[in-house]
Amino acid sequence: MAYQGSTKEEALNIIDLPRLRAAVQRDTEAGAFGYVDGGSSDEQVLHDNETAFRHYQLIPRMLQNISAPDLSTTLLDIPLSMPVIAAPIAAHGLMHENGERVTVRGVGAAGTIFSLSTYGNSRIADVAASSPDTSKFFQLYMSRDDEFNQYLLDEAVQNGYKAIILTADATLGGYREADIINNFAFPLPMENLAAFSNAAGSGEGLGISEIYARAKQDLALSDITKVKQMANGLPVFVKGIQDPDDALAAIAAGADGIWVSNHGGRELNGAPASIDTLAAVAKAVNHRVPVVFDSGIRRGEDVAKAIALGADVVALGRPMLWGLNQGGAAGVQSVYEHLAEELKIVMQLTGSHTVAELQHAKIIDAKF
Amino acid sequence: MAYQGSTKEEALNIIDLPRLRAAVQRDTEAGAFGYVDGGSSDEQVLHDNETAFRHYQLIPRMLQNISAPDLSTTLLDIPLSMPVIAAPIAAHGLMHENGERVTVRGVGAAGTIFSLSTYGNSRIADVAASSPDTSKFFQLYMSRDDEFNQYLLDEAVQNGYKAIILTADATLGGYREADIINNFAFPLPMENLAAFSNAAGSGEGLGISEIYARAKQDLALSDITKVKQMANGLPVFVKGIQDPDDALAAIAAGADGIWVSNHGGRELNGAPASIDTLAAVAKAVNHRVPVVFDSGIRRGEDVAKAIALGADVVALGRPMLWGLNQGGAAGVQSVYEHLAEELKIVMQLTGSHTVAELQHAKIIDAKF
Amino acid sequence: MAYQGSTKEEALNIIDLPRLRAAVQRDTEAGAFGYVDGGSSDEQVLHDNETAFRHYQLIPRMLQNISAPDLSTTLLDIPLSMPVIAAPIAAHGLMHENGERVTVRGVGAAGTIFSLSTYGNSRIADVAASSPDTSKFFQLYMSRDDEFNQYLLDEAVQNGYKAIILTADATLGGYREADIINNFAFPLPMENLAAFSNAAGSGEGLGISEIYARAKQDLALSDITKVKQMANGLPVFVKGIQDPDDALAAIAAGADGIWVSNHGGRELNGAPASIDTLAAVAKAVNHRVPVVFDSGIRRGEDVAKAIALGADVVALGRPMLWGLNQGGAAGVQSVYEHLAEELKIVMQLTGSHTVAELQHAKIIDAKF
Amino acid sequence: MAYQGSTKEEALNIIDLPRLRAAVQRDTEAGAFGYVDGGSSDEQVLHDNETAFRHYQLIPRMLQNISAPDLSTTLLDIPLSMPVIAAPIAAHGLMHENGERVTVRGVGAAGTIFSLSTYGNSRIADVAASSPDTSKFFQLYMSRDDEFNQYLLDEAVQNGYKAIILTADATLGGYREADIINNFAFPLPMENLAAFSNAAGSGEGLGISEIYARAKQDLALSDITKVKQMANGLPVFVKGIQDPDDALAAIAAGADGIWVSNHGGRELNGAPASIDTLAAVAKAVNHRVPVVFDSGIRRGEDVAKAIALGADVVALGRPMLWGLNQGGAAGVQSVYEHLAEELKIVMQLTGSHTVAELQHAKIIDAKF
Repeated sequence: MAYQGSTKEEALNIIDLPRLRAAVQRDTEAGAFGYVDGGSSDEQVLHDNETAFRHYQLIPRMLQNISAPDLSTTLLDIPLSMPVIAAPIAAHGLMHENGERVTVRGVGAAGTIFSLSTYGNSRIADVAASSPDTSKFFQLYMSRDDEFNQYLLDEAVQNGYKAIILTADATLGGYREADIINNFAFPLPMENLAAFSNAAGSGEGLGISEIYARAKQDLALSDITKVKQMANGLPVFVKGIQDPDDALAAIAAGADGIWVSNHGGRELNGAPASIDTLAAVAKAVNHRVPVVFDSGIRRGEDVAKAIALGADVVALGRPMLWGLNQGGAAGVQSVYEHLAEELKIVMQLTGSHTVAELQHAKIIDAKF
Repeated sequence: MAYQGSTKEEALNIIDLPRLRAAVQRDTEAGAFGYVDGGSSDEQVLHDNETAFRHYQLIPRMLQNISAPDLSTTLLDIPLSMPVIAAPIAAHGLMHENGERVTVRGVGAAGTIFSLSTYGNSRIADVAASSPDTSKFFQLYMSRDDEFNQYLLDEAVQNGYKAIILTADATLGGYREADIINNFAFPLPMENLAAFSNAAGSGEGLGISEIYARAKQDLALSDITKVKQMANGLPVFVKGIQDPDDALAAIAAGADGIWVSNHGGRELNGAPASIDTLAAVAKAVNHRVPVVFDSGIRRGEDVAKAIALGADVVALGRPMLWGLNQGGAAGVQSVYEHLAEELKIVMQLTGSHTVAELQHAKIIDAKF
Repeated sequence: MAYQGSTKEEALNIIDLPRLRAAVQRDTEAGAFGYVDGGSSDEQVLHDNETAFRHYQLIPRMLQNISAPDLSTTLLDIPLSMPVIAAPIAAHGLMHENGERVTVRGVGAAGTIFSLSTYGNSRIADVAASSPDTSKFFQLYMSRDDEFNQYLLDEAVQNGYKAIILTADATLGGYREADIINNFAFPLPMENLAAFSNAAGSGEGLGISEIYARAKQDLALSDITKVKQMANGLPVFVKGIQDPDDALAAIAAGADGIWVSNHGGRELNGAPASIDTLAAVAKAVNHRVPVVFDSGIRRGEDVAKAIALGADVVALGRPMLWGLNQGGAAGVQSVYEHLAEELKIVMQLTGSHTVAELQHAKIIDAKF
Repeated sequence: MAYQGSTKEEALNIIDLPRLRAAVQRDTEAGAFGYVDGGSSDEQVLHDNETAFRHYQLIPRMLQNISAPDLSTTLLDIPLSMPVIAAPIAAHGLMHENGERVTVRGVGAAGTIFSLSTYGNSRIADVAASSPDTSKFFQLYMSRDDEFNQYLLDEAVQNGYKAIILTADATLGGYREADIINNFAFPLPMENLAAFSNAAGSGEGLGISEIYARAKQDLALSDITKVKQMANGLPVFVKGIQDPDDALAAIAAGADGIWVSNHGGRELNGAPASIDTLAAVAKAVNHRVPVVFDSGIRRGEDVAKAIALGADVVALGRPMLWGLNQGGAAGVQSVYEHLAEELKIVMQLTGSHTVAELQHAKIIDAKF
């Protein structure tokens, strides 16, 4: 029987983002839920990604004469309604029958940037057509096959995507036990693979390790400029940076942005929580290029902490898919707007009139 | 059906203050209990407000020749039986049918200061009339409407209130999920609002965010002297200070007292426990004005720790309402007297003859 | 119906000391068990007394050429089979029908020192008669009535007790909630009180706060020499020291020994675990007088850690009473011998041939 | 009825090593399982051995141009397929009816070194005969009887064992409560004891403390060269080193390798986790001799952390026995290969082309 994603389309009455997860688990087949939800190995990093935010504490500031915090900002000169964009995630079709074509509309309605994964269930062109006015980034999992890389980047350029996100932290798959336990294989085609090759190459019916087997494992610094050239000069973010030396090397090699992430806890386990790596990387980058942060954002406080620790914007992953599953494009929009609502309160109470001020909010690391 | 607060009036046989909470939860409608009890967001700060006391440790001192510790002290030259006063809290009517008019009598009987909130269920004048001999402070939630501010301050002055507490940390409401889940709206009028405006403006039937919508959000340093002038020169405490720079700025702007508080964990989440902000603020204030501390006091040890960390007096919030609910004015008095009893033991065993000596008790931060 | 303590008399097959506690709880009336077992306030210190040992780590040492560690040592030139003596505890009659007269025999059989409390259920002379060859200390809770103090000290001197333990940390009782909840009153007479005064003054039927009401609350440094003179020059330990300054002051005032203890977590709560205060006190004392340590010893590792942190001997409290309850004098002996057996393994594996070497064993504080 | 070990022989489909343990517990008699599984005293060190790995964090490195990490390495010039060898453990017969003769074949098939314990259930010669091509070490529990020591070492030399592991951390047995509770006695003969002496000396039916009673308790530094001479010059590892001074002394006394271990948490409790002692020892050794590490390895991340902290290879204990119990030689091989598979992912994501590079991977101690 064919896999059936959600067909819901409705704005959501959200109490908080974590509470959405249970409904998604209830409504989704175990293998698909496990793929989206799980992390690698014993999931220590997955767990720490959320809990490590707790040891950072924002200091409340008083009498700062703020009547309404302004959440708008920009990334690569693209105007954003809030300092939150979409993280690239594979296989939105697991969550909703029209996958990324739906998500992009919700993200656009929320006034921010959508990121499409190579391993999406929708074609680059179809996502663009579904929401032409939404700003879009394309995330490249570089293939061993440069013709395929060129095909993908040509599609991204021709369809008006504004930047390339080069995935550096997933040259192979993390050891994801949920997928092994569930014997998970993708029930839906990855349309960008299918569009380039024949149907057998679509990814449908393959496990995650088979998908990764096609990836270029020996990714190197030289690939940054190579991708940039292949993408007709589009700016390139390097995603997965967690070490200051790697950030400096990537910038020296031509990176236009640094994306701090540990792939949502799905790659190296036994490693720091993503938020614990941000401050040192941001300090090394020192505003030469923008810094995007993801992995573990669940609350307005988390957004504020990441920005106060040096991120320019944060990216939202799993919670966006929860909104997609429970409410389609309107659900995605509800997720972003709820997060913005929480962030607005945090900005007011930390005395931050603007996102630029939030970057200078007082924050302490109470762990040490 | 009209909301019915408790009608109890009896002295309480208290084992410890935390044990009172369960009885209140049992006896109170869920929405009202949630309003009093809850904190913001995932309630990390609410939780930490109580538990953070644990990492401060008082050092027992021996052979100090103490026959009976003296708990009396003063605040703004007002004599107090103990270094504990009442924190201002909204809507005592949720706990007892005669609300603040009852609480004030219990606080007075215990020999200390009562604080009335703008959002109380009793009028400024009625509270004064109910217990003329009790020293009283008035807590101002500054309104966008200066006529209302002036009305309130005039009432406070005319009824003999001895200081104004300017609420600085709640220019909007924290994100309180219990109230959202319970769809909580105030079932009783806020009498000071009602007295000034028409019945529709009383607060009855409004949610907390609607109440806050009337507050002056862009509170600034200049409001300190403005309030002082409007209050005929009454001393003004700035409540909600948690940062040394804010304390210094407030004193420079005319504050007569600094009130360290995080609003009982009901405003900014992802922030320090209130007690963790006290020492640095008190050090900055350096005895130029009194320092009051609230948020998380449940035990005599907690009182002693706050004073050893730099507070002149502490203020008691939720536990006072538990006493109000379970025993009316006599219950409130029992709560204060129980806390004094615990504090007396702590003073004896830390070698503190007086509150002044308690301020120099040895205390260590065992977290670091 | 008269209170009935245990009548058991048998050697115990002990797995570990903590496992004895459950049997005692099962066999003992709730109020009596609560009195022996409980701590003050929310029992944070009671809990920490045991768990704080965990953050100290002994370093295993190899190839140290040890064939059999020697546990013998001395205290005030009294030879001991092991560096563990009996802590003074009130009311052994709650645990066994012949109380201290039984315990003293078990302690003596184990080859170490017994300590009798003023608030014991056996007379000073009767304890001595029950086990003449056992070395004994007498713990004085100094009374407001110097005639009673003199009576007690005369009895101790005349019956061959070898030192006085002056209780400094309990000039009033801690806030012990178990006793309040159980409405606990002593069901048995305190025979030393009864012997001096009339039956009404025996302590029987009184609560703990009533007992403490007779204590001299304004204990001072001058009481050290006063007790020494009243005790005909017997050496005086000051018990309850947890601060280096207090230790130095007590030695300057004539103390012959420093006894580090927090009264088993029964006095000041919100304070350090007893073991966490030991190293600084021992360093200040610097071997001028012996240092005894109690509060929280449950394992051979705990004994070794206390000695490596600066104690000369440790004292055992509740576990001794568990042995008394479950096996009388033979049970007490089993408890000490079991602890010695565990300690012997620890000494071997830390490379300590003797107790003197154990004082120089490598130990780290892994908390910081 | 005779003890019956497992007779299984099949490759295992392993999700992760910890999940194997439950099946072993289900299939094994309680006393035998407890002997293999348990630690000493309250098992704090046993527990910490696994959990302490968590506070070390490997830093993910990006764009390092790795196509396939190379796990091969050497120890004493012996080529290994992976930096993981077998730890010596007593009594494999409890897990599988043919004990060490089976384990050795699985270890050899995995391409690494087997270690046989003096207290194995198979003779030195029989283990060699069972898998002649596998590299083997022999672990000596030095006896009080030098004739027995010489017999064992002669056997090891004559049967081609390549090194001697001198057990330094178990001159007596730790206090293992599981064995006491289960009244555990070895149900099978220790064949090396039986071969030397008569059947009554085989170890069958003896408790662990009786076995240890035969050990040379006063092991000293001079025993290193003595063993080396008795073993015809075979290299000698000293096992159980956890202190830098002991490592330096052992090297000065002739040790050819340092084996950091706390005997799997079975000896001194109240001590550091094994991994927490590694870095200081490795730094002191400074590559003069190889460093082997064991105690607590359960994941590829753990292997990588131990190597990044200074180990040359790690040794695997209990998980190897789990594989033996569930799958015989093929099960043992599955365990090693699974661990290698996890390690390969970790090496790729930390940017380590080789084991030598892994020794320089970035690792932080997030505890401090």
